[in-house]
Amino acid sequence: LEKAMKGRQPTDLMLRCTILDAEGNVKTISGQFKKLDLCSEHRLNPRDLRKIDSRIPNLVPTILVRKEAILVNMLHIRALVKADAVVLFDTYGSADSRLHSVFLYHLEHNLRAKGQGPPYEFRALESILLSVLSALEAEMVFIRNLVGGLLAELEDDIDRDKFKRLLHYSRRLMSFQNRAKLVQEAIEEVLEQDEDLAAMYLTDKLNGQPRLLNDHEELEVLLESFAKQVEEIVNEAENIHSNVQSTQEIVELILDSNRNALLALDLKVSIVTMGIGVGTLVAGLFGMNLKNYFEESEFAFVIMSGVSMLIAGIFSWRGLARLSQIRKVGLSANGKKKPSKRHWLPSPLRMHHNPDSGLS
Amino acid sequence: LEKAMKGRQPTDLMLRCTILDAEGNVKTISGQFKKLDLCSEHRLNPRDLRKIDSRIPNLVPTILVRKEAILVNMLHIRALVKADAVVLFDTYGSADSRLHSVFLYHLEHNLRAKGQGPPYEFRALESILLSVLSALEAEMVFIRNLVGGLLAELEDDIDRDKFKRLLHYSRRLMSFQNRAKLVQEAIEEVLEQDEDLAAMYLTDKLNGQPRLLNDHEELEVLLESFAKQVEEIVNEAENIHSNVQSTQEIVELILDSNRNALLALDLKVSIVTMGIGVGTLVAGLFGMNLKNYFEESEFAFVIMSGVSMLIAGIFSWRGLARLSQIRKVGLSANGKKKPSKRHWLPSPLRMHHNPDSGLS
Amino acid sequence: LEKAMKGRQPTDLMLRCTILDAEGNVKTISGQFKKLDLCSEHRLNPRDLRKIDSRIPNLVPTILVRKEAILVNMLHIRALVKADAVVLFDTYGSADSRLHSVFLYHLEHNLRAKGQGPPYEFRALESILLSVLSALEAEMVFIRNLVGGLLAELEDDIDRDKFKRLLHYSRRLMSFQNRAKLVQEAIEEVLEQDEDLAAMYLTDKLNGQPRLLNDHEELEVLLESFAKQVEEIVNEAENIHSNVQSTQEIVELILDSNRNALLALDLKVSIVTMGIGVGTLVAGLFGMNLKNYFEESEFAFVIMSGVSMLIAGIFSWRGLARLSQIRKVGLSANGKKKPSKRHWLPSPLRMHHNPDSGLS
Amino acid sequence: LEKAMKGRQPTDLMLRCTILDAEGNVKTISGQFKKLDLCSEHRLNPRDLRKIDSRIPNLVPTILVRKEAILVNMLHIRALVKADAVVLFDTYGSADSRLHSVFLYHLEHNLRAKGQGPPYEFRALESILLSVLSALEAEMVFIRNLVGGLLAELEDDIDRDKFKRLLHYSRRLMSFQNRAKLVQEAIEEVLEQDEDLAAMYLTDKLNGQPRLLNDHEELEVLLESFAKQVEEIVNEAENIHSNVQSTQEIVELILDSNRNALLALDLKVSIVTMGIGVGTLVAGLFGMNLKNYFEESEFAFVIMSGVSMLIAGIFSWRGLARLSQIRKVGLSANGKKKPSKRHWLPSPLRMHHNPDSGLS
Amino acid sequence: LEKAMKGRQPTDLMLRCTILDAEGNVKTISGQFKKLDLCSEHRLNPRDLRKIDSRIPNLVPTILVRKEAILVNMLHIRALVKADAVVLFDTYGSADSRLHSVFLYHLEHNLRAKGQGPPYEFRALESILLSVLSALEAEMVFIRNLVGGLLAELEDDIDRDKFKRLLHYSRRLMSFQNRAKLVQEAIEEVLEQDEDLAAMYLTDKLNGQPRLLNDHEELEVLLESFAKQVEEIVNEAENIHSNVQSTQEIVELILDSNRNALLALDLKVSIVTMGIGVGTLVAGLFGMNLKNYFEESEFAFVIMSGVSMLIAGIFSWRGLARLSQIRKVGLSANGKKKPSKRHWLPSPLRMHHNPDSGLS
Repeated sequence: LEKAMKGRQPTDLMLRCTILDAEGNVKTISGQFKKLDLCSEHRLNPRDLRKIDSRIPNLVPTILVRKEAILVNMLHIRALVKADAVVLFDTYGSADSRLHSVFLYHLEHNLRAKGQGPPYEFRALESILLSVLSALEAEMVFIRNLVGGLLAELEDDIDRDKFKRLLHYSRRLMSFQNRAKLVQEAIEEVLEQDEDLAAMYLTDKLNGQPRLLNDHEELEVLLESFAKQVEEIVNEAENIHSNVQSTQEIVELILDSNRNALLALDLKVSIVTMGIGVGTLVAGLFGMNLKNYFEESEFAFVIMSGVSMLIAGIFSWRGLARLSQIRKVGLSANGKKKPSKRHWLPSPLRMHHNPDSGLS
Repeated sequence: LEKAMKGRQPTDLMLRCTILDAEGNVKTISGQFKKLDLCSEHRLNPRDLRKIDSRIPNLVPTILVRKEAILVNMLHIRALVKADAVVLFDTYGSADSRLHSVFLYHLEHNLRAKGQGPPYEFRALESILLSVLSALEAEMVFIRNLVGGLLAELEDDIDRDKFKRLLHYSRRLMSFQNRAKLVQEAIEEVLEQDEDLAAMYLTDKLNGQPRLLNDHEELEVLLESFAKQVEEIVNEAENIHSNVQSTQEIVELILDSNRNALLALDLKVSIVTMGIGVGTLVAGLFGMNLKNYFEESEFAFVIMSGVSMLIAGIFSWRGLARLSQIRKVGLSANGKKKPSKRHWLPSPLRMHHNPDSGLS
Repeated sequence: LEKAMKGRQPTDLMLRCTILDAEGNVKTISGQFKKLDLCSEHRLNPRDLRKIDSRIPNLVPTILVRKEAILVNMLHIRALVKADAVVLFDTYGSADSRLHSVFLYHLEHNLRAKGQGPPYEFRALESILLSVLSALEAEMVFIRNLVGGLLAELEDDIDRDKFKRLLHYSRRLMSFQNRAKLVQEAIEEVLEQDEDLAAMYLTDKLNGQPRLLNDHEELEVLLESFAKQVEEIVNEAENIHSNVQSTQEIVELILDSNRNALLALDLKVSIVTMGIGVGTLVAGLFGMNLKNYFEESEFAFVIMSGVSMLIAGIFSWRGLARLSQIRKVGLSANGKKKPSKRHWLPSPLRMHHNPDSGLS
Repeated sequence: LEKAMKGRQPTDLMLRCTILDAEGNVKTISGQFKKLDLCSEHRLNPRDLRKIDSRIPNLVPTILVRKEAILVNMLHIRALVKADAVVLFDTYGSADSRLHSVFLYHLEHNLRAKGQGPPYEFRALESILLSVLSALEAEMVFIRNLVGGLLAELEDDIDRDKFKRLLHYSRRLMSFQNRAKLVQEAIEEVLEQDEDLAAMYLTDKLNGQPRLLNDHEELEVLLESFAKQVEEIVNEAENIHSNVQSTQEIVELILDSNRNALLALDLKVSIVTMGIGVGTLVAGLFGMNLKNYFEESEFAFVIMSGVSMLIAGIFSWRGLARLSQIRKVGLSANGKKKPSKRHWLPSPLRMHHNPDSGLS
Repeated sequence: LEKAMKGRQPTDLMLRCTILDAEGNVKTISGQFKKLDLCSEHRLNPRDLRKIDSRIPNLVPTILVRKEAILVNMLHIRALVKADAVVLFDTYGSADSRLHSVFLYHLEHNLRAKGQGPPYEFRALESILLSVLSALEAEMVFIRNLVGGLLAELEDDIDRDKFKRLLHYSRRLMSFQNRAKLVQEAIEEVLEQDEDLAAMYLTDKLNGQPRLLNDHEELEVLLESFAKQVEEIVNEAENIHSNVQSTQEIVELILDSNRNALLALDLKVSIVTMGIGVGTLVAGLFGMNLKNYFEESEFAFVIMSGVSMLIAGIFSWRGLARLSQIRKVGLSANGKKKPSKRHWLPSPLRMHHNPDSGLS
């Protein structure tokens, strides 16, 4: 605990980051910067740096608006967007990341194309959100395929190994759902605060023309569009989740039903075994080394064989009859209830039954 | 992922659409248009086109209000409503759609009937919402019948195949519920924003008389009426869902109870078999090729037969007695608890028990 | 689908209704009126008529405020309340309804008693809400008795037929809960909108003194009082529902536990049967027509009988010992975990355990 | 239903109540008052009396603010608080209530201590809320002990009777939770409405100095403090509830697991029985009264005994081997999946796994 | 109950507390103070003292803003923060607490470092929140390791003891989740009220410059930052919880599936036993001491042995065939449904199926 409390003091003062300038060119790649310098240069609160410190995993995604910069921390991207520069903080192990290079390529390209379009900071933001969206979409498609394939396999055969895989997939699905929802919340949180939206027009601020509180339609449309697409992904993930859920429920019913069928067959076998046992008992009695007065009878063997078979048959038949009686399972209660139901129903409500009350 | 990010660049520049003019006549059927032309002609944001691009499946339904047009994307309809024209975007495979032609017929008819009624854009909107509503209703009725039929079948007989069908139906039901809710949310989202409602009076805008923010009662009544009807459908779907849910729960209890009955019968059979086994053992002992001193007894056979039968009977009877003792299952705990409960209950609260506490 | 879309066109132009005049006297009983006449006479929107068209079942309850009338559609009542008349629309099959005649009697009586009380339209509204409330209460009491009786029966004996009835009752309960909640929402929706509340003072409007937006305390108290009572009913229904729910869960546990008891007895029987089988095997071996060298022994019979019995006993005893070992089921884990738990617990949090952590 | 509707007419015109005057002295004990007199004396709406009519059980708790009085209806207390008097309505069976007398004692004491403190009506309110709080707390502690004791017993032994008690306790817990939540909602409802809070300063109103809408800090602090304490109780009840819930789930798993263990032992027994059966068959064959050519063999007996034992052993061994193979149950899927998982994971997302993904 | 009501009267008038002065030095360690003195000295309401009275366990965490002080009650910390002093109330058993001394050390250090930073009261608040955060984080990590380890063990082997530990861990997890959420709510409650935020600038108040309602950005950033971190912890705890949940569900399915496998093997054994029983019956019949006419036949022994084996085989084979037929369990319904599904689907909706409808 001591360690934890001290760990919050700035012990590690360096951060690695990539900087793009106003023209969209990469100025520095994975350069080392002091935290304090970063704070003073970009007028950040030291506490804000925690959000972009890539050594802390599993942060809740956020878009923070500060005086001269927008801090974005979403999934694999931790960036500081200014009116004339973008600082990308390296995340651990990002060296091998194809996604990252695609993002960087797109960002550079987007930042260069200035001319007519939206201001610099929005173009940067667009690239970032686009990359986040692709990452979410890619993972969603991947999980959908995994789960879909597994459910399709369950169509053919229900076995234990599939359940184990289902567990792994549904853990992963839930973790994905969680992440996607947090991204959605982060975007919507910004959208709800007029102040933050107005404060995000960094170029205008730099030019000394801060936006009025209501004047942020352009940015709103941009963010709303992304929020909508993240919502679609979240929605899709929920669909998959409820699909998994209802499959689990039905599989349980099927296993239960299957078990009953197995038990019923077991019972049949037991009953026949019991019948045979009776026959064997009769035969055994006549096998005793005692006088049974039939020793010399000509037909006793055939008769007793027949009798013991018959007893076996009767016992089996009675058992099986009882079994088939128990096996009949339906939902309908037996006659009596139905009419009484009609009589007891308060009359004024009779006509308000749902059309589907026919099901009941 | 690269592909995904690039796929968002406008690679496919053509869209197929059907256009109706101010008189309600079809001007173009499935004509090809460039996306850029559409944007400039209708003053749309290129990003908006995503909403009506019919090649992207499974979009969250939306009603977007733009400067000169209303963009509607709901279920099978993707349309651009203007003050003097309606552009319908073709959805894939819509060629065979009867629903689509009914919609088109109704739309044409509704647009022509100008005269006294609401403005052009609202008549178009009405037709669109009506078509969405019919589609939802048709599917709801269809699913209700499917599910209702299946539940009725379960009344008679519970078996595995029915569970499998139940799974398919409940997946479909959930997907439908999801779609219906999203449609409801889309309509309510528009209803909540006064700005959007006012901006939807396109004809007035075209005539240079934009509506005030509060002056949109006509449109509000129209949309509210549809929202109410969608709500009814959503509500109905939820009813079906909870019906399915409680059926599943009860079916599980019935299967469990049935299993116990099977086990009890199995146990009876086992017990009788055990009894018979004891008899057989006795008989077997006397069947040994050893001296048993009764070889010459006259009545030994009858006596030993009787004895072994008796032993079989005693063992069976004791087992069955134990069984019937275990089988008695009720919820009521045995006497002791009830009085103690009364004593411990803090007195001031005794009179506040719900009337239904009699159940407890 | 075509049919569905056309079905929305006004094909059936007549509605049956009963009209009460300003004195509370019944002017017309089940008279036929054209829809169009109704619309123009009461200045209604044709779309509004859908709400009171009694042929459409299962509508979401609503209270709609229009220029000269209040439209109420709740459970069995579909009425149009004006400042000087009440129009009751016949619902199908209402001929036999005792509830309806009680309602009509109360309404007439309430409308006549003008003098000092609240204005005409509020007296009508009061009667309507009172009738709705009685209907809800009657059904709630009825369902509570049904469910309560069934749960009491489950106290004595758990069997399959009771589950089937439970299913029917809980479907009905859910349908009732749904209806009650919708009524509550409808009343609260009106209560939330100051405009609607003010617009419901029809008499004042007729006298040319429309109410101010805030001046509706009388009506608010009336509606709030009904809303509170509907809330009580909804609350009661939820109590019943959670009662059913927890009963189901515990019944499942009891069935499971019972099944284990059955299995254990089955196992005992199997073990004894196995033991007997071993004895029979020994006896059978000596019954073989082979030389066993004991043929002439005097005590071989008694010895071998004893031996086979003993073997039977040993096998049974070992099996039963193993069984009783498995049968011991408790929640407490075995010693080892407890101390380790104490050591690992971070010290600062030790004192914040809930008092009920003693349970853990 | 007729009865129900008429029952709402004021048939029973008398209410029993105890009155305390401005000095905190009891003026009347259980005196009978006409409802109409009460209404006119305290300027109440007749409808309000329903809230304090003690014959109606199970009301939703409320605090109603009227012109000259505050109506409180909470659990066992139904009171009318005025600026200079408190009217306590008798609840049925309250004669034997110790809680009531403690409450009355506290109320008298609190009302007398005027001097410096808060105004008369707030002192009355404080006593009422304190009594409600004690009642809730007492019941919460009582239920916590009941449930805690039961869960502790489940530690040692899981049996059916405990489930039955668990059902009774969890019904009671849910009913308590419901009541506590409703009390909380009632207090918070008052706290949310500035108008009501200001109107509760009855003494100031009596003195002709009605409070401004914002000026009610004293009352707010008083109510908030009680709301917080009720929240603590609700929170505690929820903790107990979720404790019960998770215990149920785990108990089900344990029963399931126990059942598998029983089945496995059953299977072992069955397998051994089968092996013995094979041996018996062999012995039986040689027991047939047929020529087997070994009749005179010296060692045939020993050999055949050995052979039949061996066959019994082989059958048993093979069965047991198959069983132990099935019995091995773990969650980990078998090797193959793990590596494939790594390959399929879209690279950009690899570094965003939660730390707990190590669990998966 | 009497006791409970009186217990609220101030019977215990002393509180132990540690006081730090404006320089951050400890003035008094565990000194005894009268409650009344504390109230008058810090201008507190006597009711407020309940929040910091350390003898009451399990309070809902709160941050209360009073005229001259901030009262903080969170987990292990109960403190009174003023503009120039911090009063820490001793919690029972805190003597042995390492966390407490770390907190005290950090607090002293933080209070001394005045100079440029935020005002005295915010530095104190920061230390308090930091300590709360560390405590939450430490417990979260601890629980995560416990649960993670257990789930990893379940990978290898599912047994009853693990379920018992799972129960203990998930109770603890829920209790932790609850506490973390309450801390989050307490912080957010303060953040939502502008008045409270402004009133927390105690130093400014002391200097006679109370803050305006909107002017509290510094404090807001501080609290928001902590709220975000608590949210991360809550979020993580929810992840663990849903992980446990889905593991439980899947484990249940696996146990069910395993049970079916056991039953199937049991059935196989029963079937073979039955077959053997038939053979034994035949052998037994020929072992009867009756004439069977084959006594002298040379080959009868071999033939009858073969015949009885054959009968045993046939019975077994038929039983096993039936079993394997029942054992085939898949989700796909048998052919018939699929095509009918296609035909019944209302055409307009066909193209709106989700991409994942391929799973269905």
